[in-house]
Amino acid sequence: MQSELKFFNELVTKLLEKERSEPVVEPLPTSSVIADLDLGFSDEGMLEEDWQKVVENAVMHTPRTASKLFFNQLFGGRQPKAVIGDLLAVILNNSMYTYKVAGPQAGIETAIIKETCKLVGYTDGDGTMPPGGSMSNYMGLVMARDAKDNTVRYAGITKRMTLYTSNTSHYSTPKNAAFAGVGRDNIRYINNDDEGRMNPAHLEECIQKDIAQGHTPFYVNATAGTTVLGAFDDINALADVCQKYRLWLHVDGAYCGAVIFSEKHKHLTAGMERSDSFSYNAHKMLGTPLSSSVLVTKHKDQLVKSFSNEADYLYQTGDEDFDLGITSIQCGRRNDALKLWTLWKSVGNKGLEKIVDHQFYLADLAREYCENHPDYTLYSFPDSVSVCFNYKGIDPKDLCTKLYEDGNLMVGYGKFREQEFVRLVTINATNGKEEIEQFFKALELGA
Amino acid sequence: MQSELKFFNELVTKLLEKERSEPVVEPLPTSSVIADLDLGFSDEGMLEEDWQKVVENAVMHTPRTASKLFFNQLFGGRQPKAVIGDLLAVILNNSMYTYKVAGPQAGIETAIIKETCKLVGYTDGDGTMPPGGSMSNYMGLVMARDAKDNTVRYAGITKRMTLYTSNTSHYSTPKNAAFAGVGRDNIRYINNDDEGRMNPAHLEECIQKDIAQGHTPFYVNATAGTTVLGAFDDINALADVCQKYRLWLHVDGAYCGAVIFSEKHKHLTAGMERSDSFSYNAHKMLGTPLSSSVLVTKHKDQLVKSFSNEADYLYQTGDEDFDLGITSIQCGRRNDALKLWTLWKSVGNKGLEKIVDHQFYLADLAREYCENHPDYTLYSFPDSVSVCFNYKGIDPKDLCTKLYEDGNLMVGYGKFREQEFVRLVTINATNGKEEIEQFFKALELGA
Repeated sequence: MQSELKFFNELVTKLLEKERSEPVVEPLPTSSVIADLDLGFSDEGMLEEDWQKVVENAVMHTPRTASKLFFNQLFGGRQPKAVIGDLLAVILNNSMYTYKVAGPQAGIETAIIKETCKLVGYTDGDGTMPPGGSMSNYMGLVMARDAKDNTVRYAGITKRMTLYTSNTSHYSTPKNAAFAGVGRDNIRYINNDDEGRMNPAHLEECIQKDIAQGHTPFYVNATAGTTVLGAFDDINALADVCQKYRLWLHVDGAYCGAVIFSEKHKHLTAGMERSDSFSYNAHKMLGTPLSSSVLVTKHKDQLVKSFSNEADYLYQTGDEDFDLGITSIQCGRRNDALKLWTLWKSVGNKGLEKIVDHQFYLADLAREYCENHPDYTLYSFPDSVSVCFNYKGIDPKDLCTKLYEDGNLMVGYGKFREQEFVRLVTINATNGKEEIEQFFKALELGA
Repeated sequence: MQSELKFFNELVTKLLEKERSEPVVEPLPTSSVIADLDLGFSDEGMLEEDWQKVVENAVMHTPRTASKLFFNQLFGGRQPKAVIGDLLAVILNNSMYTYKVAGPQAGIETAIIKETCKLVGYTDGDGTMPPGGSMSNYMGLVMARDAKDNTVRYAGITKRMTLYTSNTSHYSTPKNAAFAGVGRDNIRYINNDDEGRMNPAHLEECIQKDIAQGHTPFYVNATAGTTVLGAFDDINALADVCQKYRLWLHVDGAYCGAVIFSEKHKHLTAGMERSDSFSYNAHKMLGTPLSSSVLVTKHKDQLVKSFSNEADYLYQTGDEDFDLGITSIQCGRRNDALKLWTLWKSVGNKGLEKIVDHQFYLADLAREYCENHPDYTLYSFPDSVSVCFNYKGIDPKDLCTKLYEDGNLMVGYGKFREQEFVRLVTINATNGKEEIEQFFKALELGA
């Protein structure tokens, strides 16, 4: 193992150097990438030296998501204290289903869940760490479905159940509705206001219509940070509607739910303690490696009902509170907790708050830049870390593709209503003012 | 980052040393583990020195799944070449949904899928890497449901759909049936023969009964390596039945599906090319870190139908064949491919074959040991890496708990029909004859 670790360390040193000198990778064509980098397999193994070369080559041609010119996704950068936690998780290699096999790692996940419940305001809540934000939403949807009709888990779906999410919410809701046997056609897409927030009056109207038709409304998916605009639905207003019609309110905070760590910004999720479930991705706003998703719910009993299963070949020591498989959608499950924990322990609640606040600060800078430069048209709003704009009226798709193909900058585009634009996501908290300026400079040069 | 990596390297050196000198951790009580190891959070961060101490303490008290006395689960040991791949995946931190963001890493996953299809015998197949074996089975079930009734994805479930799995199959089938809106009550648990294999005649009988009652049979879950006995269902016999009634045949090879790499043992999954989907966990038989699950299907179109969704904010470069989000149950998704690839490239197909064959060799040794020592009663069969036995008639639950609590050895127990027994899993291919003997010695001493 020691010689492999030596190779790892040398390669990481090279990669970190490369990230500084060449932050963007020139893309290889998909038609030849497998052949060009020798990615296929053979009967015989490789000499150590050849193996090291082929591994290094693949690593060096991989898009550098931690570099200063990567703004393409809702994650980016590298929090060293979190990285160490995930590296250790690989070496320790525990599966999180039982205390017997995970030991203190199950305690670490439990501590994260407990603290998150406290921050959200669930007094007797519980939770789990699902494999990503889509699956967090899925678990919320399944709990909602089962809570509305306790027979579904056993008898299957026997009536038409309807659910509600905004026009601009994440694409996991239609996927999840299909997976859950509820069906995509039973989703009502609710209108947004001009800043991308779900319209509660339209929500209520849709619910009433479904009830009048004899359907069974069961679930509202609110978003804390929509994928494109980064908008926050008004949770209190949606909770009023959900309370009235007894619907489960899930808050998809995959992108920006981590505002719960910020005194300054947590007002954006005001009313969250009235929701039934809430999720956030630590690998987005908090900058841990992928993935580290947290889902909490007010209804501990429903979490167990929807996800537990007897398995005497697995649960053997009676440590039920720490046998986390009981509340998981998976069985064997890697340790996604340690990386968040190593970061959180190191910087404390206040350190996580700083990380979150800094992203809003960077977004303010970026919006300011657009406002102060007449070549830019700005399409986004305060209180969001998505900064959406166009440059010199260039088609954003063409612009982003050119920047990518030329190896200048990685950034994506989005759409709200019929308007397309470039979307700069200021989620890499290791960036500063300089990197934001560098972003615009690279864009202007590469356009 | 460099100072953190230094800490990581020092800590790993200590851990590897500890694994050799004290392969088993003495368990801490769940009631105090959070307080004892200072796992909770504070407002303020920690001094670097204190942080290092608290991290080291948590790591050192974590069960050592890579050590020579860990036999508790369907994984164990450490393949250094695979570990390096997963460490690099943490550092690179790509999300696997698009070629733009994952680059050659998407090529690596594609190469794994292609080669697996070839080994299984799907000529124009495709696949994905789901987050674990349960989710692999879930994706198989969802494809089967959608293939049987193309309206479900849109309208939801409107009729009673029935599915079939053996009495001794994994507990993910009832969980998954609930998630999918099909319902646990619509599972028929099929009888086994004396060696734990599903009885095809009973399967056919149950299908006929459901048809007679007007239900819609859609899915048979076969197992390649049942969780307790490690038994292989007769895929050819089940395929005959599935063909006759047009049911989707999924092979859950989470535990032992990797026999496809072995000339000597792949007869255990004979007929697999007649199945509709097939999965294996590289983190079980192949010894990669958790998790690295591979799911392939003969029906590329169904994989896309069941799991794709338009998302123009995500898919932006037209590299469809390498935009792996289109065939994934998740959206953002960590790189579970690189660790399998670094191992596979290093040792080749023949090296993976050796890893698999060695586990059967170790199981033979263990069975031999039980047969040659009159204090042992053996309950398992050839062609299995689960070696099930009792020692001196001691209750296996009491024995395993004692061994665990005393910090002597980690091993679990299981049940077939009414017989309980200790289950030794010889899945750690870095073990040799000596370690198997050491296992029995530790058990005898600690009993």
